Amino acid sequence: MKTYFDCIPCFVRQSLDAIRSITADEEVHENILREVLKMASEMDLRQSPPAMAQRIHRRIRELTGIRDPYLARKNQLNRTALDLYEVFHERVARSDSPVELALRLAIAGNIMDLGVKSNIDESHIKKSILNCLNVPFDGQVEDFQREVDAAESILYLTDNAGEIVFDRMLIEQMPLQKITVAVKGGPVINDATRHDAEMAGLVGLVEVIDNGSDAPGTILDDCSPDFLDRFTRADLIIAKGQGNYETLSESPGPLYFLLQTKCPVIARDLKCPVGTMVLKRSRASQSVNKEPKTATSQTGAGE
Amino acid sequence: MKTYFDCIPCFVRQSLDAIRSITADEEVHENILREVLKMASEMDLRQSPPAMAQRIHRRIRELTGIRDPYLARKNQLNRTALDLYEVFHERVARSDSPVELALRLAIAGNIMDLGVKSNIDESHIKKSILNCLNVPFDGQVEDFQREVDAAESILYLTDNAGEIVFDRMLIEQMPLQKITVAVKGGPVINDATRHDAEMAGLVGLVEVIDNGSDAPGTILDDCSPDFLDRFTRADLIIAKGQGNYETLSESPGPLYFLLQTKCPVIARDLKCPVGTMVLKRSRASQSVNKEPKTATSQTGAGE
Repeated sequence: MKTYFDCIPCFVRQSLDAIRSITADEEVHENILREVLKMASEMDLRQSPPAMAQRIHRRIRELTGIRDPYLARKNQLNRTALDLYEVFHERVARSDSPVELALRLAIAGNIMDLGVKSNIDESHIKKSILNCLNVPFDGQVEDFQREVDAAESILYLTDNAGEIVFDRMLIEQMPLQKITVAVKGGPVINDATRHDAEMAGLVGLVEVIDNGSDAPGTILDDCSPDFLDRFTRADLIIAKGQGNYETLSESPGPLYFLLQTKCPVIARDLKCPVGTMVLKRSRASQSVNKEPKTATSQTGAGE
Repeated sequence: MKTYFDCIPCFVRQSLDAIRSITADEEVHENILREVLKMASEMDLRQSPPAMAQRIHRRIRELTGIRDPYLARKNQLNRTALDLYEVFHERVARSDSPVELALRLAIAGNIMDLGVKSNIDESHIKKSILNCLNVPFDGQVEDFQREVDAAESILYLTDNAGEIVFDRMLIEQMPLQKITVAVKGGPVINDATRHDAEMAGLVGLVEVIDNGSDAPGTILDDCSPDFLDRFTRADLIIAKGQGNYETLSESPGPLYFLLQTKCPVIARDLKCPVGTMVLKRSRASQSVNKEPKTATSQTGAGE
């Protein structure tokens, strides 16, 4: 997805929000603000929003000298999510439709995104998770299930710390030997890295790799050759969150996006309201005939 | 008032909103967006927000080649307000507290501000006007009235087209021979110019001057010597709207601000919620002893 004009003021606002959450030094706030404005004034709008966010957050780390400014918040999100895991993984196990419930929870976990708003409190997370159990969810769960069953190798692209614990609940509903989980190659916002996969209990459960990139999404040109090889060879890719949608929406699949729409630009792109739980097969997947193991009807929540 | 960091993303958003309301040409949208970002990256934050807005809207006029991009919308706002005038000036005349009602209406009229949002529909205006009649209004109307009575010369700084018709209702409650109404020296957003004072029926009723400036506020350094002379000599200044507050909040008075708070930065500065109807004597006025004709207690709505 290209960067829309409307993304630009939002970048500026988010950058200010981010830097304020990292340091109280107003001189750093002003430096970041001015640099973001200058970067944005010159940016190539054919790039996806995460390309810009990658540059901004690299600069925030440089200017503050903090390697991982979100570390404490990421750990807290993981702990909150692990508490919720205790409650919900039993519930999934007892459910009549465990895959649907696990899908709902994995998408609900996508609320734990500090890129949109740099602070998010526990009560908001819990409310959002509980809410996800009841909202309409028009995703084609059966199609998803069929593609999971047919695939021999599944690459699961995680999004955020905290959320990754909810990803585990979905992953546990799939044949574990098929799954490779990918995290980011380095810290950016609260995106999950290997450390978070460890906290979530995924390391040891399934294979965990990193993508070699510190972009808050999956910019293929920025990923490692090893990751690209896995990406190309996977029978099915599951991509979590807005950042992965923004960077992979035009990518050939088979690829499922699981996300909550948190901004009007993406909601418009997905033709659904802000706040929708989305399970959507990649548009680009439709025309790709890479071993068409299942019907590839487009799926989506709230459409 | 200086420009706060939070004003910057808002400038960018408002500029995009403004240029979209003027032309559908996406190349012009992109040009304006990039120029605004570059200007903002270099701007002197000690300047008030209207100084930046002045530059942005000059550039919009240059790039589009349209001398007064808001003309049609200003005329429409004046017509809407004139229809409402028919209803309300009778109501003011019959009121037990006509000055308070006229103050309320003049402040309510401040909703007609296309700087905050470039389109505003008639039903929203009507709703806002009716609402103003009932909301709490803690302004010190008696102090205001006393200062009006004591002053020999009153300079009334208007804000927007449409709103200026509501200003007329307040002006009609004051001794007309004392009043000079000031409008902007040239078009900027939907700020009132001489043309709007004419449509509002103020020309002929009171003296109307312009301030020689095309800033959406009153940047004294940018105003004409004639206007400055009037500004300095006036016994009392009545300043409408956020732009005048932003540019004159530190100016020695005696000066009353009449506005609706439409942004969180100004609301914070005025220590009241967004959407408050404000009648406030300038802080700077407190320490000035220019013929202290009345008690100069600070006044404000919703504080």
